Amino acid sequence: MDYKAYFQTHRDQHLNELKKWLSIPSISALSEHKPDVKRAAEWLAETLKKAGLENVKIHETNGHPIVYADHLHAPGQPTVLVYGHYDVQPVDPLNLWDTPPFEPAERDGKLYARGATDDKGQIFLHIKAVEAILQQEKQLPVNIKFCVEGEEEVGSPNLPKFLEAQQELLKADAVLISDTSLLEKGKPAICTGLRGLCSLEVHVHTANTDLHSGSYGGGVPNALHAMVSLLDSLHDAKGRVTVEGFYEGVPELTEADHAEFAKQSGDENKLKRDLGLDELYGEEGYTFAERTGARPTLELNGVYGGFQGEGSKTVIPKEAHAKITCRLVGHQDPQDILNKIEKHIYSHVPTGAKATVIQFEKGNAFTIDPSTPILQKAAEAYEEVYGTRPVFTRDGGSIPIVETFSRVLAAPVVCMGFGLPDENLHAPNEHFNLENFDLGLLTIVDFLKRV
Amino acid sequence: MDYKAYFQTHRDQHLNELKKWLSIPSISALSEHKPDVKRAAEWLAETLKKAGLENVKIHETNGHPIVYADHLHAPGQPTVLVYGHYDVQPVDPLNLWDTPPFEPAERDGKLYARGATDDKGQIFLHIKAVEAILQQEKQLPVNIKFCVEGEEEVGSPNLPKFLEAQQELLKADAVLISDTSLLEKGKPAICTGLRGLCSLEVHVHTANTDLHSGSYGGGVPNALHAMVSLLDSLHDAKGRVTVEGFYEGVPELTEADHAEFAKQSGDENKLKRDLGLDELYGEEGYTFAERTGARPTLELNGVYGGFQGEGSKTVIPKEAHAKITCRLVGHQDPQDILNKIEKHIYSHVPTGAKATVIQFEKGNAFTIDPSTPILQKAAEAYEEVYGTRPVFTRDGGSIPIVETFSRVLAAPVVCMGFGLPDENLHAPNEHFNLENFDLGLLTIVDFLKRV
Repeated sequence: MDYKAYFQTHRDQHLNELKKWLSIPSISALSEHKPDVKRAAEWLAETLKKAGLENVKIHETNGHPIVYADHLHAPGQPTVLVYGHYDVQPVDPLNLWDTPPFEPAERDGKLYARGATDDKGQIFLHIKAVEAILQQEKQLPVNIKFCVEGEEEVGSPNLPKFLEAQQELLKADAVLISDTSLLEKGKPAICTGLRGLCSLEVHVHTANTDLHSGSYGGGVPNALHAMVSLLDSLHDAKGRVTVEGFYEGVPELTEADHAEFAKQSGDENKLKRDLGLDELYGEEGYTFAERTGARPTLELNGVYGGFQGEGSKTVIPKEAHAKITCRLVGHQDPQDILNKIEKHIYSHVPTGAKATVIQFEKGNAFTIDPSTPILQKAAEAYEEVYGTRPVFTRDGGSIPIVETFSRVLAAPVVCMGFGLPDENLHAPNEHFNLENFDLGLLTIVDFLKRV
Repeated sequence: MDYKAYFQTHRDQHLNELKKWLSIPSISALSEHKPDVKRAAEWLAETLKKAGLENVKIHETNGHPIVYADHLHAPGQPTVLVYGHYDVQPVDPLNLWDTPPFEPAERDGKLYARGATDDKGQIFLHIKAVEAILQQEKQLPVNIKFCVEGEEEVGSPNLPKFLEAQQELLKADAVLISDTSLLEKGKPAICTGLRGLCSLEVHVHTANTDLHSGSYGGGVPNALHAMVSLLDSLHDAKGRVTVEGFYEGVPELTEADHAEFAKQSGDENKLKRDLGLDELYGEEGYTFAERTGARPTLELNGVYGGFQGEGSKTVIPKEAHAKITCRLVGHQDPQDILNKIEKHIYSHVPTGAKATVIQFEKGNAFTIDPSTPILQKAAEAYEEVYGTRPVFTRDGGSIPIVETFSRVLAAPVVCMGFGLPDENLHAPNEHFNLENFDLGLLTIVDFLKRV
């Protein structure tokens, strides 16, 4: 039986299995769901076993467990490590869901449930693809390992340590991740770039108490004046970051890069209309796709100080606060960038004010050359199944774990996603288009055979 | 009996009367205290009657009532209108009061209660001074009118209308207000300047929704970036307001002005230490007293937008908000200033952002020439009783009603205060130093006889 017929025959059974998994509310962020997260891990381990995988083990961590399994019976062939996550986002606001998030429902060729596309649905494809090959051919064309965590939605706090500690166990020639999306329906994409991330807070203090703007106004520093001056100094009038050395390590785009970005670019006028904007805004000389995919940013995520109530209050605030995150590209080092911003802040503090910088997260950018052989194999598999060659995209978001896998295991990472951008990840009515459920299974089988 | 002996004899009786008034929680800002405000007005009317004043009337307004009374039996003599207020500020946080705010208590020569100095205690002095003269001499040396409102602590929303409508009733040769303070213990002051005020809000909007800083960061306008750029454009690096025409109508200080300010100036190093500041900050070429007393300001009172919770959130905020007040001097017109700021904002909006300006309060600055004869009489009265000539001060705060009285009644306003700056106005443990209760009564009697 060819694979298309095989998956057709088993389709209802597969979907029913997946629905059982989706019924488990494995919300990693909410401690009351800790038993559910555990149950989802156990379900996964059991399903991996039934699929024919070996050495299945639930590795405990300081948080939620990591499920490992492998099938290493293809001597001389490469080893592929499949990564995914079985935890899901919270579901509020619950009243915006058309059907309950943990009662999976099919409508119009889509499977609705929390986790349907992010990421249970996608990791499930890999399990069923491997099971199909084993059922049909009794052996796999490659060695395969699964490493599926339960903390992706809370920032994977325990995974890097696990990777470092279990390098031998996880050793692989390539890492395969299905947690990204097609460009749009029928247009597959392979993500070859993710931006890095760093975040910080700036706190400005002036007097030891809020002051009356009548008695003191004009004669004392105002924490908000100092803050807006500091924050405004971070960009020039054209939106470029003015922090000294910020752009060190940022690769200039080649003609080939511009051409690849042109392929993934949407209609900027439609984007403006959709967002209700008169103008897009960003660094001169780059398209929207380039600005978000290949250029670093420094964004103010929150600023607050003084009176926020109704009406007016004649107060000179003694403190002001700002939250900042940067998206990084190329060889920008998050720690180095944080230090440079901190230095900029400390050297620009206006008279009479004091500033404190607190550094938070740090994650490296990830890039992989599209000509890497394993990526070309992935592209061929997509082309075979979808009938169109995938676009190599560079995404503005950050999945720090991708860079961690690439660095710690010293292996190329293939981001081979089967979701669609509008499937309401992290929002009510998350769903998975079953067209890509069907095509995804075939693509993975094709890919594993090609490697 | 001389007045000193008279007031000594009646001291306990006077204080007991005042305590009864102070026991009424006439908080104008809180609607549940409306009956208390009314009760305080009735108590006042009754007390004015008992003091010998005539035509006592409680004038209803759209808010709390205004109490009027007069004694017009000095033909050919000038008429003095006494203004004050019988409403008080809210009292929270209640747990910081050493004794309950509406259970007046004497400790260490001070009378503690909400309203003790602001302003029941001070207006009470005028009633008892008039009563004393009538008791001792059966007639007053001047014609006198009382106009005491119940909405000063909520911005006197109904008083200007009342003044306009009752110009004939309120006509006077001078207005006498005791709602300011001495410079310090033993150092009387006559306020000859109060700054005007105007306030506005700025709202900045960008996209129609908050956006993810991964997918959109670097490619779309950020409302916070636009806001800090707008706000920072309002001052230059030396703290001067950059709004075009802002300083029109601001009088340059004369040598005499500098000299008068030098008299009211405190120790700037002590001020810095008290406020916990490394540096004071303001326009070059002016002292702290001049910056706050004779120069206009534009202060950010509140700025907010985006994420304010714990940790970081990778959001590009779609909106940001700012609250601004200006203190005005000389002939700066609040409406004109608001229009100029609005024009500045609208002409500085960064690409991709939209700004909205909402105008709020407007109050003119007040100044009076210290050489005005009635002010000189007031100074002589202070000197007679306190043994030291008062300083003519210019205060940074705003009491818009002072300018309204001066303008509508076309009469000089004498701000003759008997409070002290550290008597916790608007704060827990408000009190009135009884030394100034005693000296205040004598000063008012002396003043009325001198006019």
